[in-house]
Amino acid sequence: MKVGFIGLGQMGSAMAANLVKAGHAVTVWNRSPGKDDALVAAGAVLADTPAAAAQGDVVMTMLADDRALEAVVFGEDGILDCPALHVSHSTIGVALADRLAGERQRYVAAPVFGRPPAAEAGKLFVVAAGADDLIDLCEPVFEAIAQRVFRVGTTPSAANLVKLSGNFMIMAAVEAMAEAMTLAEKGGVDRATLLEVLTGTLFSAPVYKTYGDMLVADKFKPAGFAAPLGLKDMNLVDAAAGASRTPMPLLGIVRDHLRTAIALEGEDVDWAGAGLAVRRAAGLD
Amino acid sequence: MKVGFIGLGQMGSAMAANLVKAGHAVTVWNRSPGKDDALVAAGAVLADTPAAAAQGDVVMTMLADDRALEAVVFGEDGILDCPALHVSHSTIGVALADRLAGERQRYVAAPVFGRPPAAEAGKLFVVAAGADDLIDLCEPVFEAIAQRVFRVGTTPSAANLVKLSGNFMIMAAVEAMAEAMTLAEKGGVDRATLLEVLTGTLFSAPVYKTYGDMLVADKFKPAGFAAPLGLKDMNLVDAAAGASRTPMPLLGIVRDHLRTAIALEGEDVDWAGAGLAVRRAAGLD
Amino acid sequence: MKVGFIGLGQMGSAMAANLVKAGHAVTVWNRSPGKDDALVAAGAVLADTPAAAAQGDVVMTMLADDRALEAVVFGEDGILDCPALHVSHSTIGVALADRLAGERQRYVAAPVFGRPPAAEAGKLFVVAAGADDLIDLCEPVFEAIAQRVFRVGTTPSAANLVKLSGNFMIMAAVEAMAEAMTLAEKGGVDRATLLEVLTGTLFSAPVYKTYGDMLVADKFKPAGFAAPLGLKDMNLVDAAAGASRTPMPLLGIVRDHLRTAIALEGEDVDWAGAGLAVRRAAGLD
Amino acid sequence: MKVGFIGLGQMGSAMAANLVKAGHAVTVWNRSPGKDDALVAAGAVLADTPAAAAQGDVVMTMLADDRALEAVVFGEDGILDCPALHVSHSTIGVALADRLAGERQRYVAAPVFGRPPAAEAGKLFVVAAGADDLIDLCEPVFEAIAQRVFRVGTTPSAANLVKLSGNFMIMAAVEAMAEAMTLAEKGGVDRATLLEVLTGTLFSAPVYKTYGDMLVADKFKPAGFAAPLGLKDMNLVDAAAGASRTPMPLLGIVRDHLRTAIALEGEDVDWAGAGLAVRRAAGLD
Repeated sequence: MKVGFIGLGQMGSAMAANLVKAGHAVTVWNRSPGKDDALVAAGAVLADTPAAAAQGDVVMTMLADDRALEAVVFGEDGILDCPALHVSHSTIGVALADRLAGERQRYVAAPVFGRPPAAEAGKLFVVAAGADDLIDLCEPVFEAIAQRVFRVGTTPSAANLVKLSGNFMIMAAVEAMAEAMTLAEKGGVDRATLLEVLTGTLFSAPVYKTYGDMLVADKFKPAGFAAPLGLKDMNLVDAAAGASRTPMPLLGIVRDHLRTAIALEGEDVDWAGAGLAVRRAAGLD
Repeated sequence: MKVGFIGLGQMGSAMAANLVKAGHAVTVWNRSPGKDDALVAAGAVLADTPAAAAQGDVVMTMLADDRALEAVVFGEDGILDCPALHVSHSTIGVALADRLAGERQRYVAAPVFGRPPAAEAGKLFVVAAGADDLIDLCEPVFEAIAQRVFRVGTTPSAANLVKLSGNFMIMAAVEAMAEAMTLAEKGGVDRATLLEVLTGTLFSAPVYKTYGDMLVADKFKPAGFAAPLGLKDMNLVDAAAGASRTPMPLLGIVRDHLRTAIALEGEDVDWAGAGLAVRRAAGLD
Repeated sequence: MKVGFIGLGQMGSAMAANLVKAGHAVTVWNRSPGKDDALVAAGAVLADTPAAAAQGDVVMTMLADDRALEAVVFGEDGILDCPALHVSHSTIGVALADRLAGERQRYVAAPVFGRPPAAEAGKLFVVAAGADDLIDLCEPVFEAIAQRVFRVGTTPSAANLVKLSGNFMIMAAVEAMAEAMTLAEKGGVDRATLLEVLTGTLFSAPVYKTYGDMLVADKFKPAGFAAPLGLKDMNLVDAAAGASRTPMPLLGIVRDHLRTAIALEGEDVDWAGAGLAVRRAAGLD
Repeated sequence: MKVGFIGLGQMGSAMAANLVKAGHAVTVWNRSPGKDDALVAAGAVLADTPAAAAQGDVVMTMLADDRALEAVVFGEDGILDCPALHVSHSTIGVALADRLAGERQRYVAAPVFGRPPAAEAGKLFVVAAGADDLIDLCEPVFEAIAQRVFRVGTTPSAANLVKLSGNFMIMAAVEAMAEAMTLAEKGGVDRATLLEVLTGTLFSAPVYKTYGDMLVADKFKPAGFAAPLGLKDMNLVDAAAGASRTPMPLLGIVRDHLRTAIALEGEDVDWAGAGLAVRRAAGLD
């Protein structure tokens, strides 16, 4: 397929590389230059503008936040009226997703779960929502980047809501482990021992292993996913919850603890550093 | 081995049956009569008093709460000064565990993870703490009831702290799912769809599958594990946290939501009914 | 003085009327027409545009939210470049206040405490911030509307932060009373009796009397100050707290309870209806 | 009247002194000796046992906690079956109050509001509950110690519930101020300025002045009322709330913050030090 790819950060570059590898004709664009050398060397074409990357079958976007996506869609030389089907992978808010779907353009929401190594391996999880025939069109490109595709509805923003819910669930698991580990440590039980029991019994999921190891090691720098970005995502959850009048007390806690992590450790702490808020409040360290 | 077993509720009966099946010489006792017919038929001997069940190698106790265990240990014809090694499987508080370990008796704490079907299958997880040589002695009986034994330290109450932490983690996962599902439902996303994505990606652990299905079905009666018992456990976590000066804000939420579940649905609601507190606060149902 | 007044809602009309009464030459403007009849009858002049109301000494604005104020300042025929000193009484966010102060215009932030009856009586509290000489200029108009003026700094947004903090403190007191009253009622103590003891001892402030009576009466309609507006204010507090990395767990609770109040009772419930979230979660009513 | 007084801590000594001064025949007892010299010099008689102090018309008790009161009532030479009417001023739990009222003895619950200076000045607030004729009997002694007596019902524990609710309300006001002050300070607004506005407007009650000054000064040692005692009271509130299935999220926050205050500052920090938990979580100090 003729594929455009906009947004060549750590995640986007890896996804675009897998598209090239899968044989698609890929045109790339990134706001700041210099991110595309390896991709061009591998066979991708460099576009001058977002619009230029959106003249083929689909244009995939993978950007940092709502503002960056708005610039690429609605800004100068944006993709709004381009012929390509817009497949939006970014973690954005429900309100923007609804706006994008409401505009004239053809649009599929397809946020992903997975960190950079999964993106490089083509092993992301894609959560897709939109008209079924449009998602059908995307299957060849999804195949290049994902180990599995979930279809969660025909309203595109449904996929964003699921993605945001998943990120909230990660932070909730971090909070739960941080509280349990702090209790254990203050009671004389080694945190690693507690984690071994948990992940050896009911809590055998990747979320507990990945983040549990970080918490046991108390190592949150360099950030794999920085706390300010995590807080941005939790604020998007909060905005969706406010709009639908949904109280979420646990969300309140994790937002507070992300603020504390940043206040104590600076902007470059991993979002799992939210667990530090619990330790410090208990007088540890 | 010559084994005594005290406490023949749903869990204890299943455990004792597996001990008989494994060829141990089992003597049983239960406060209220009539729970032992099947066990006696299978070959167990009925004791007249707790002390009479504690004359062999080990005496295992599986009781509902601190008070019941205190009665069996310190009460009339209690096991306190009996020759058998006391192996305590009940979910009790850290303070009582410390007291039991501090008395003269030989003592191993060995709380278990698993619901009745796992007990029947001999597939419990045992979390053991105490002197290593004492735990070594228990291995033949643990083998009859458990799929895996974790040793978490030489201070017996460490095992209770780990068990309580695990129960807290379960309730934390219930709360997280309840909030995410309520947000999703109010945003037009089917709860079952959300759960499928979660358990298909980062959240592939039994805790999410078991409790997620209950939440999606909104079915909390009859109780598998009743909310008042769950609240009792959370109060034990709270007591341990208070003693060690550990703030646990997420624990505060789940304790509140268990109270709400009981206030709205009565004493016989499952502890996963804590999730109802979130739904109702959002105006659902 | 030559005074412009923009925003003739319940609060603004009362404030403008007191300015006329005090002998100022008042020009008024409101987005939707028909709010100005009584004021014109009393001697006020009707302006065609916001800018036309901002040609005198000062122009006072009293609007519902950030968006309404932005329209009046930055919109067509806005007051941005007009000669009059802008005195902003609205409860707006810190970010917008900083933006207004950062533009070229002369600007004083002067949010007020007090409900409509206090506005009618000229007994508001004004919280003013900005350059001292500019606040000095405002004293004659403040005298007409307020019983007392607090000066809280030279950075205008400081006044908005104080105003938002005060509104948060009101909601915090509502939450505290709602929890205590619910506990009392479930324990057999009459809520009115509890309130009498509280306000007769350490809690003898207007906030407890005014809102305590509403809670005892369980009467939240018609709204004196509607929950969606209260939630908007709490969201402004949240935005300020997020920007400065300040965790505010009690704010999280009151935002959740305002959502619940709206989810259960509709948009026209008073913000004190947040207390209903506590009662309902305890199974009352 | 012939009055016994048991418990000569800072509060009890002052109350007993005022009884002597008012002309009552006072017999005193304290567990640890040496607290009674000044009282004996002023005319009080020293009793050998609690029971010896409970042979007159009334015996008033003012003790640190449930355990101390239980010892005095149910312990050796306790007052349980003595002829004097038992007037219990201690801040105790609802369950113990119900138990005391359920025993054979004549019993009035009369917890007090006020710190030591108010006790010395005879200006306490008494919250009384019990049979009307029994409270009538107490009026002469209440007159000696209190500026006002509130009658809150005929079930004695009602008074304890009101007292506990009041203490919760104090901590709630501390939490609210700590959050607002931290937000203000991080936004560049002086805390003292914020407090002046608050107490000059809607928040003109003693609770805000007394505790607000402590928070502005960040001075929590020496403790006027120590955090562990405050936490004990909040645990009594929590026990009452648990028994009646009342969720109290704000209570959860203040209990956590008292734990943090003790974890960070030690056992001898004032309970208002709970406010430190907020400051520290925001990265201040």
